[in-house]
Amino acid sequence: MKKIETVPTWEDIKESHLAIQSMIHRTPVLTNTAINELTGAELYFKCENFQKVGAFKMRGASNAARRLTEEDKQRGLATHSSGNHAQAVALSAKMLGVPAYIVMPDVSPAIKKAATAGYGAEITECENSLQARESTLQAVVDRTGATFIHPFDNYDVIAGQATCAKELLEDVGELDIVMSPVGGGGLMSGTALTAKYMYPEITVYGGEPEIVDDAARSLASGQLQKNDRIDTIADGLRTNLSDKTFEIIKDKVDKIFTVSEEAIIKAMRLTWERMKIIIEPSCAVPLAVVMSYPEFFKGKKVGLILTGGNVDLGKLPF
Amino acid sequence: MKKIETVPTWEDIKESHLAIQSMIHRTPVLTNTAINELTGAELYFKCENFQKVGAFKMRGASNAARRLTEEDKQRGLATHSSGNHAQAVALSAKMLGVPAYIVMPDVSPAIKKAATAGYGAEITECENSLQARESTLQAVVDRTGATFIHPFDNYDVIAGQATCAKELLEDVGELDIVMSPVGGGGLMSGTALTAKYMYPEITVYGGEPEIVDDAARSLASGQLQKNDRIDTIADGLRTNLSDKTFEIIKDKVDKIFTVSEEAIIKAMRLTWERMKIIIEPSCAVPLAVVMSYPEFFKGKKVGLILTGGNVDLGKLPF
Repeated sequence: MKKIETVPTWEDIKESHLAIQSMIHRTPVLTNTAINELTGAELYFKCENFQKVGAFKMRGASNAARRLTEEDKQRGLATHSSGNHAQAVALSAKMLGVPAYIVMPDVSPAIKKAATAGYGAEITECENSLQARESTLQAVVDRTGATFIHPFDNYDVIAGQATCAKELLEDVGELDIVMSPVGGGGLMSGTALTAKYMYPEITVYGGEPEIVDDAARSLASGQLQKNDRIDTIADGLRTNLSDKTFEIIKDKVDKIFTVSEEAIIKAMRLTWERMKIIIEPSCAVPLAVVMSYPEFFKGKKVGLILTGGNVDLGKLPF
Repeated sequence: MKKIETVPTWEDIKESHLAIQSMIHRTPVLTNTAINELTGAELYFKCENFQKVGAFKMRGASNAARRLTEEDKQRGLATHSSGNHAQAVALSAKMLGVPAYIVMPDVSPAIKKAATAGYGAEITECENSLQARESTLQAVVDRTGATFIHPFDNYDVIAGQATCAKELLEDVGELDIVMSPVGGGGLMSGTALTAKYMYPEITVYGGEPEIVDDAARSLASGQLQKNDRIDTIADGLRTNLSDKTFEIIKDKVDKIFTVSEEAIIKAMRLTWERMKIIIEPSCAVPLAVVMSYPEFFKGKKVGLILTGGNVDLGKLPF
C-alpha cells in the first residue's frame, strides 16, 4: 500500500477502508421521526460526531498516515489545523507510535487544543492567518523532518474521507441524494466519488455558509474562487477549496447550496433538541439546506453527513 | 393482560416488555474509552435519552396505558408531572387514540410544555406545589373521568421502567453493578427488581443529589423520609419516594449515594463533551457518583442508566 497519486479510484477507496478499519469507528446512521415530519423528507444522518476524535477527519488522517513509508512514519506527522484535523493527525500518530507536530491558530477553541495535546502531540501556536500557519508549519517540518499531512489537498486524505459515504450507503442502501458540508472540500470530494462509484444515478449536493460560499461560486463559474471573509459560525468550513478537491467537485457534485447563519443555528438547535446529540455548527449545514430549500428534498431519501461534535460548550450560539 | 396489583414478578416484567414493544425504542448501550480511562471503571451507558419523548418514562406510562380496560382507555389518561412523564402519558394516549389531560407546574421547562402540547394533550397549568398539582388533577379527573397514571407509585409504571435494565443486561450480559438515579423511585425500584431477578448476585446502587437525599435517608433509617428543599439542578429527582417504590428499594437496593450539584454539572458536561450526547442533569447523577466515590467502582463492570435528554438549551449550567 502506498500514497495515492491521482484521483482515488473505487479500488483505492475500498483499500483505504480496509487499511484504516482498526483506527476508526463504524459510526451509526440515525433517523428521527420528528425531523422527517418537519421536513417532509426521509433523512439518514451519518453520525461522524461519534467518530474517534469526534469528527470524520480521523478517516483521512489515518489513511494518509498508514500510507507513509516506514521511514517517513518514524520521523512523524505534522499539520496545521484549526481543530478536528489536528486531533485526527495527533491520534493517528499516537496509534502508530510516532511523533505528531501540530500548528494551531491561537484562537482555536480551547476544547480542541486540549484534546490535541491530550493525544501527546507537540503544539505550536501561531497567528490566525493562512500565511502564519504555513510559515510556522514549514519551520516545524524543517526542524523535525516530519511529513506534512494536508487537511484536504491530498488524495490519501480524500480517499479516507470517502469511506464515510461508503459506510452510509452500505448501511441504508440506495438514496436519492447524499449531501455533505463543504469547507476545503476533502469530505465533499470523497463523498461525491464514493456516491457516484456506488450509484451513478445518485444526486450529490454540498452545503456551505453564505458567508464562505467559495465552493458555490467556484462550481458556478468553473474557476477556483476564494472567500473574502471567514466570520461564519461554522468554523470548520472557513477554508477555500484546493486544486485537488475542486477538480473532483467540478466533475461529481451536482449543486452546492448556501445557507444563512440563522439557518445553521436553527438546524443545529433542532438536532440537539430532537436527536439529543451534540453536533458542531459546521455539520448543521446540510440540515439547514434541507430546511431552506425544501422543494429539492420533499419525498426524497436523503443521506446527510454529520461531520463532528466538537463544540466549546462555553460559547454556544443559543 | 391487566393491572399489576402487587410488587411486579419477573413474569410481569417480561409480559410488560412484550406489551410495550411497539410503543418504545430499544435504545443503544454506549461505551466511551476516555471516560473509562478517567474513572478506571468499565462503564455501560443505557441511552434512554434516545427513548421516545426523550426519556425512560415512556416505558412506564405506555405499560400503564396498555393495561387499562378498553372503557377506561376511552375516557383518557391523566397525570401531573414536571415534564418527562407528562410527555410520556401524552404520547401513549396519542398512540392509543385516546385523550390525555396533563397538569403541569407553570415553572416547567418550556421545551417540555411545548413537547407535551405537541402530542395533542390538554395542558392545565398550576402552581408549583404538590398540593396544587394534586387538587388541579383531581378537578380534571372529576370532569373527564380519565384515569390518573401516577408517575411512580404504580406497579404498572414500575414494571414498565423495569424493562430498561432488562434490555441493558440482555445486551451486555452480567455486570458487577447497575445504577440508576432516584427521584420518586419508579426507575430505581424497577431497575433493582430486574437486576436481582436476572442476576441475584449483582450489586444495585442508586444515586441522588445531596439536596434531595430522601431516598438515602429513607434507606438508612428504614422509614420513609421527605425532602425539606428541592432546589437541585436535577429537576427530575426532586420528588420523594412513595410507599410502593420504597417497599421495593428497601428490599433490593444495596446503597444510595449522594452527590453535590457541582459533581452533577461536571458529570453532565463530561458526558456532553466526550460522548457527544445530550443528557439532562438528572441523568448525570450516576456518573457523578462514579466520579465522587471511585473506590466503589474501579475495575468493575458498571451499567448506568442515562434517563433522559430533555434540556432547556436556553438555561444550561455551563
